[in-house]
Amino acid sequence: MSDYRRITIASAGSHAGEPVEIAGWLYNLRKSGKIIFPLLRDGSGIIQGVCVKSQVPEQVFEDLKNLTQESSVIVRGKCRAEQRAPGGFEMDIESVQIVQRVPEETPYPITPKDHGTEFLFDHRHLHLRSRRQHAVLKVRHEVIKAIRDYFVTQSGQLYNEATAMAFGKTYCFGPTFRAEKSKTRRHLTEFWMVEPEMAYADLEDVKRVAEELIVFMTGRVLENRKTELATLERDVSKLEAIKGPFPRISYDEAVKILQGKGSEIQWGGDFGGTDETILTADQERPIMVDRFPSSFKAFYFQPAEDRDDVVLGVDVLAPEGYGEIIGGGQRIHDPELLLKRIEEHKLPKEAFDWYIDLRKYGTVPHAGFGMGIERCVAWICGLEHIRETIAFPRMLYTLRP
Amino acid sequence: MSDYRRITIASAGSHAGEPVEIAGWLYNLRKSGKIIFPLLRDGSGIIQGVCVKSQVPEQVFEDLKNLTQESSVIVRGKCRAEQRAPGGFEMDIESVQIVQRVPEETPYPITPKDHGTEFLFDHRHLHLRSRRQHAVLKVRHEVIKAIRDYFVTQSGQLYNEATAMAFGKTYCFGPTFRAEKSKTRRHLTEFWMVEPEMAYADLEDVKRVAEELIVFMTGRVLENRKTELATLERDVSKLEAIKGPFPRISYDEAVKILQGKGSEIQWGGDFGGTDETILTADQERPIMVDRFPSSFKAFYFQPAEDRDDVVLGVDVLAPEGYGEIIGGGQRIHDPELLLKRIEEHKLPKEAFDWYIDLRKYGTVPHAGFGMGIERCVAWICGLEHIRETIAFPRMLYTLRP
Repeated sequence: MSDYRRITIASAGSHAGEPVEIAGWLYNLRKSGKIIFPLLRDGSGIIQGVCVKSQVPEQVFEDLKNLTQESSVIVRGKCRAEQRAPGGFEMDIESVQIVQRVPEETPYPITPKDHGTEFLFDHRHLHLRSRRQHAVLKVRHEVIKAIRDYFVTQSGQLYNEATAMAFGKTYCFGPTFRAEKSKTRRHLTEFWMVEPEMAYADLEDVKRVAEELIVFMTGRVLENRKTELATLERDVSKLEAIKGPFPRISYDEAVKILQGKGSEIQWGGDFGGTDETILTADQERPIMVDRFPSSFKAFYFQPAEDRDDVVLGVDVLAPEGYGEIIGGGQRIHDPELLLKRIEEHKLPKEAFDWYIDLRKYGTVPHAGFGMGIERCVAWICGLEHIRETIAFPRMLYTLRP
Repeated sequence: MSDYRRITIASAGSHAGEPVEIAGWLYNLRKSGKIIFPLLRDGSGIIQGVCVKSQVPEQVFEDLKNLTQESSVIVRGKCRAEQRAPGGFEMDIESVQIVQRVPEETPYPITPKDHGTEFLFDHRHLHLRSRRQHAVLKVRHEVIKAIRDYFVTQSGQLYNEATAMAFGKTYCFGPTFRAEKSKTRRHLTEFWMVEPEMAYADLEDVKRVAEELIVFMTGRVLENRKTELATLERDVSKLEAIKGPFPRISYDEAVKILQGKGSEIQWGGDFGGTDETILTADQERPIMVDRFPSSFKAFYFQPAEDRDDVVLGVDVLAPEGYGEIIGGGQRIHDPELLLKRIEEHKLPKEAFDWYIDLRKYGTVPHAGFGMGIERCVAWICGLEHIRETIAFPRMLYTLRP
């Protein structure tokens, strides 16, 4: 129908000077007398258009001049390099096809002015169109892609133990639901978790893989998501500091440090959010805390070789107060000990028959961990609230959109 | 502790002649007088060991000779090329460390003899260790990886419509739950679905992308999973025939064909499993059926331009009787029409406020589809039952393992 080739904004640079069309939405509009500068978005990027009154039919200029935010339009013209433009290119507009004009009476509800967080998340289905949310979700994508690239095979933690005995090393990646009554900046009812599990592996292997994975993941984001980190005004020097080895301390040491800094924690108690922040406050890198009291860890943790009161678990705490991003450890491989623990925890043995089987037929030392994606993305992006890290966050009182 | 380097079976070829150790499980044991041939698996592959009585300490030979299926062992020795061996290499065993010996009194329940399907799936946590299940899950992995490689960005269908308006093109990939009371070879309560959604796209775009994706996916499996397809005794010529263009017929034509072949279907009725099998029986390639009666399609389907009784939906049916693997189409983009449909279907308008918003602020023609992973894997592997395609299948009466 037209000689204008449909391109994405991201590819504008490869089509400079050619007649092209961009199908997208009006992100913003700036007028300066006889020139209009519509800012267009198409999902792949944002480009500034330039429409000079004397160079286009009058109708084109009028259409554009009165265009409302988030109206859908197809614009045609030629792109040219422009150093001052955000993406390095601008488009000289020749014609415009308005797909839908948003009426003035029912304007797009999210304007450039400041909106409250509640309002934005009530309009999450539209909020996603903003440049900032784009940047966050692109970093999320990079994090997820890095994780998949880091691991070898595709295949929750108990099930992974079964597949690890079949495949040696496996990981599981999917949504996890926790119906906790906690409404904090750090919690979501639905979050995504990656869970590697390795046969013939111990606590030290978990620490090694966790460290490697975090270094790989932050490196990938630094490499491929520079623009997005700039949009988010992230201090990238904090991410560049993420190199191995990470500091490793025991739970015993952590409790002493915390008590020295005024925390009321006693040996045997789990860390609170404040404790995690204190522990990481003066650290540039994530820290690893291991050997936790068995009293508050799950039934399947392997006890330490030398002590009966601690288990071979490890938590990885992100810097800058972002809290626990990884929890894991070595699992019990001895069938007798596992049975004993199931009884001590008053768990229904029948439900775990298959899990016990794994210790009856070729049991081996094995270990694994879970890493929460949203916490990682919040930390890497430097966000205050975790709910920005997922397209449609589910929280205690959030059902829709 | 030892001079033997820990390797995986898959990498044995790069370590020929070096002292190495393999940590794994005994898959099978063949004895021939003074030589024992233990078949070892470690998740990465299977290798045959050779242990000659005169060349190892007596204890090593005795340990191996009496080893039981699925006992966990670490074997040490040197690998060497052996054309007749399945992976092209054998290991000359020098020593053995038994991690756990499965006792004769409680032997591994899955023996080389034939077991019923029910029994195998009751022991799915162990069944996964078999060579065949390995092959299926590796093909599954390849399918999933191909899908991710095919699509560009990461981000269910209504939500995708929101992200498509923000990102242009998106896809969602995750588990889907359908609590249907159907207990067939083709249904699972939990299945995985990939759902691309594209702004500024129509029914023809859906057909084009669906076809490209299927050709890409089968091509990748043929390229990278030859061994697994051989293990499954899959007739690969059937997969090599999967090239575009796929036959495209309308629902009207499909009904005529079915009636001609004895089906009792009447215009307006949905296809049954038998109808799908009849339609694909004489086809080498997947077929695309489009323009379905609006009466049995969801409220959001865009009506055809020229007729009010059909909508712009399309189903893709896999060959060899594997049924529908893709369903999708063009969505209503007109806000008035969408409201009308929501009322006609007696749906609660408040619940769809956000979905209607997408048509109020920069609506554009858009389209997408959903592809079921397990159906695709079953077809590509040539499996009789879909439950083999997922590590832990969830069905009407299956809760554990």
